[in-house]
Amino acid sequence: MTATAKNAEITVNGVNVTEVIDLVSAIEASPELAQSQYRLTNRWIDRGHSQSRITEFFSGGKIHNHLQEFVLDADVPAPLAGTDFAATPGEHLLNALAACITTTVVYYAALHGIEIRSLQASVEGDLDLRGFLSLSDNVRSGFEDVRLNLVIDADEEDLEKLESFIPISPMLDTVRRGTQVEIVVERQTRDS
Amino acid sequence: MTATAKNAEITVNGVNVTEVIDLVSAIEASPELAQSQYRLTNRWIDRGHSQSRITEFFSGGKIHNHLQEFVLDADVPAPLAGTDFAATPGEHLLNALAACITTTVVYYAALHGIEIRSLQASVEGDLDLRGFLSLSDNVRSGFEDVRLNLVIDADEEDLEKLESFIPISPMLDTVRRGTQVEIVVERQTRDS
Repeated sequence: MTATAKNAEITVNGVNVTEVIDLVSAIEASPELAQSQYRLTNRWIDRGHSQSRITEFFSGGKIHNHLQEFVLDADVPAPLAGTDFAATPGEHLLNALAACITTTVVYYAALHGIEIRSLQASVEGDLDLRGFLSLSDNVRSGFEDVRLNLVIDADEEDLEKLESFIPISPMLDTVRRGTQVEIVVERQTRDS
Repeated sequence: MTATAKNAEITVNGVNVTEVIDLVSAIEASPELAQSQYRLTNRWIDRGHSQSRITEFFSGGKIHNHLQEFVLDADVPAPLAGTDFAATPGEHLLNALAACITTTVVYYAALHGIEIRSLQASVEGDLDLRGFLSLSDNVRSGFEDVRLNLVIDADEEDLEKLESFIPISPMLDTVRRGTQVEIVVERQTRDS
């Protein structure tokens, strides 16, 4: 990671570059501080509706509480026999992707001293329901293709550099390359 | 997809099984109705904070409006130089995963006439920040490992069957196998 700012308290794109450089230095000195973990619990409410609660995360060798608890609902729309109370799991994943790419570009731009005036993304993900409904062995259940269009207001000479930051995005890497997911199922034991 | 209900209006786990069976029949008759698309727009607000808006989706051959617009914020916590205004992109992705697995199990259970009394998941995702910070070529930026623990209150004899539904989850399939993401970057052209 190259940075244009050293020592002085510098803010670009709202990002405190000095803080990020301090984080980089701390991890270079003690690589174990790079280990991070995100966590949540999810509870089925009814029908296709579930709710996640996020209170803490592990970063820099310790558990931190978020400033507040975040509650995320997911549901299924009416054509899929749901109540459309909240965004679908697929939309939540596209949001994770868009938000992560945006943040990555904005942070790296800040570290390179590149000002971004505005950044917007539109994302589309294609699904073939024959996968989820087990109607075809040749159709996967997940997204077959995702397309993201990023519109950036920045100086023209910075555009190529900004584009080069995109593949660093952690959630883009997660979705493009895939990640192992280990699952354990337990039966609820009831006291009464 | 096997179903225990035919013709009659049957509801299991809050899911209208008849509606789902009608959907399956419609797609069997006209496979092109299976093509679906989720969409959203995301806008950078400041620093690590961005906001997605979700208004419509494509399903069954036409565009549907959601019953309301869904707004999803994402941000970065304080140790990563953010303001911790909302859940991180990584937490949003874990939510997509947990919600999708929950919904998949509940829907398939309904279609098999299996009653679920409660279902909760806890999810953890490990990240090594040396990836995002470009401090090591051997460390990926995305999740290295995700673990999900599912606690189900259902009859003991149904547990194995319920477990078999998990891999069908579209977002689990997306994350485990990965998905291509095409990205186009445009420079904002300004009128004034």
